[in-house]
Amino acid sequence: MKIIESTDAAQAHVRERRAKSVLVPTMGALHRGHLELLRVAREHAGKDGEVAVSIFVNPLQFEPGSDFKKYPRPESTDAKFCEDAGVNLLFRPREMYFDDRSVYVEETRLSAGLCGASRPGHFRGVCTVVAKLFNLLAPNAAVFGEKDYQQLAIIRRMVRDLNFPIEVIGVPTVREADGLALSSRNQYLNTDGRAAAPVLYQAMLRVKELAANGENSVTRLIDAARGVIESAKDARIDYISIVDRENLQPLERLRPNAFIALAVFIGKTRLIDNLRLT
Amino acid sequence: MKIIESTDAAQAHVRERRAKSVLVPTMGALHRGHLELLRVAREHAGKDGEVAVSIFVNPLQFEPGSDFKKYPRPESTDAKFCEDAGVNLLFRPREMYFDDRSVYVEETRLSAGLCGASRPGHFRGVCTVVAKLFNLLAPNAAVFGEKDYQQLAIIRRMVRDLNFPIEVIGVPTVREADGLALSSRNQYLNTDGRAAAPVLYQAMLRVKELAANGENSVTRLIDAARGVIESAKDARIDYISIVDRENLQPLERLRPNAFIALAVFIGKTRLIDNLRLT
Repeated sequence: MKIIESTDAAQAHVRERRAKSVLVPTMGALHRGHLELLRVAREHAGKDGEVAVSIFVNPLQFEPGSDFKKYPRPESTDAKFCEDAGVNLLFRPREMYFDDRSVYVEETRLSAGLCGASRPGHFRGVCTVVAKLFNLLAPNAAVFGEKDYQQLAIIRRMVRDLNFPIEVIGVPTVREADGLALSSRNQYLNTDGRAAAPVLYQAMLRVKELAANGENSVTRLIDAARGVIESAKDARIDYISIVDRENLQPLERLRPNAFIALAVFIGKTRLIDNLRLT
Repeated sequence: MKIIESTDAAQAHVRERRAKSVLVPTMGALHRGHLELLRVAREHAGKDGEVAVSIFVNPLQFEPGSDFKKYPRPESTDAKFCEDAGVNLLFRPREMYFDDRSVYVEETRLSAGLCGASRPGHFRGVCTVVAKLFNLLAPNAAVFGEKDYQQLAIIRRMVRDLNFPIEVIGVPTVREADGLALSSRNQYLNTDGRAAAPVLYQAMLRVKELAANGENSVTRLIDAARGVIESAKDARIDYISIVDRENLQPLERLRPNAFIALAVFIGKTRLIDNLRLT
């Protein structure tokens, strides 16, 4: 596995590359969820293609007061994880921004609600860093997890609107046995928090069950989810929304393409999840 | 010369291309100034390389109430101009935007003053369309005229900050014998306007002369330029600024790297120009 730690070296690498390349952009602290992204990336790259992983804890996507400083950075464990998973290229740049940076990629519609409403500037940071990674590593395809569903929708929109010659591949969420979606932030949870955390999935399953039984009032479905989450100790709802999968607009009545997305603080740890309802 | 009129065809063309490619992005209405851009593009592409020209009157960079509708679009004349100039690829897309577009590239510092202050949204439109052209046509280099100096500085910044693997080449302004900078908008001028239009260059030359004689108060230099322009019939100043060539910040005293930039309405036609002072 080749390791590249500067933007100049990344561009030199690209100039020499011939085979198909599939990128998995991450912030590190790799887990089984990422392993599934790597499996799908290899499937698309082919045996002789390049699976590239980027690890960069992107300051631009952390809003003020969030967990940028404490975000886990297990550098050598992550490198071994990639090596063992058959990754061909690990890009872990030491720096990505100039002090006088002034150019950003901004998505103005899909990022208005859900996590975008709770985390101002977050998706501008995501779009900007992903655009930079696309330009630096010039992949043919890039793989993202559906756990960050809004992010995936926004990246798809960015690729379409800015004509990046890159296929975007979404990968279904990987869950623990009790339903908790895998996330690097799960390690922030203490024992009580870990015990409470599956409540996000339980709330979504409850809504799906009610929907399957004919309930189609979004207000009532969200109230049901709220009830499940409020039953858990130390759980505080950031948002619960039922939206259209394509344009992420809130629905009033359940429709094909509806899905539920939520963000819940378990103690101080903010977790997100989503589930297709129909 | 190959002509491509859709974004899909552009991407297919890029996938097959092997030689070096140099792009000259334009809005058409090609003139001798563009010919100089093409000459520099060929110099950089080499004999076997590709010189690509894009012609697209980009609605996103025309602020409300400006000349988008009346902007000249001499399609067949432009195609012949390119053919005669040895252009290898003409990209004139019929459409570049989705109705529900929501992703833009935004420069937040260099675009604050000069034309950016007079034309809100203009440079967002420029950055967005140039980013799209870079992604669609994947040139190794791109050529821009120094007549649009702020645009050139912003594109350089975009390429740096978003890591486009593209060299940006600036080409000195081409002028008529009387000093008027070549521009597609010069054809809007009537006989009186054409006679008055060299006043922009005359005002800049006057400032350069005063600077050479030791005047270094920017206030007094701008007053002198103002005096020259106000002497012309039907000339109305939009702005006159003396700024640093790198960061485009207004200066109080003349410094190395100073240049003067101005925008003047001659009748209803807005002309811009700039000149290095030191």
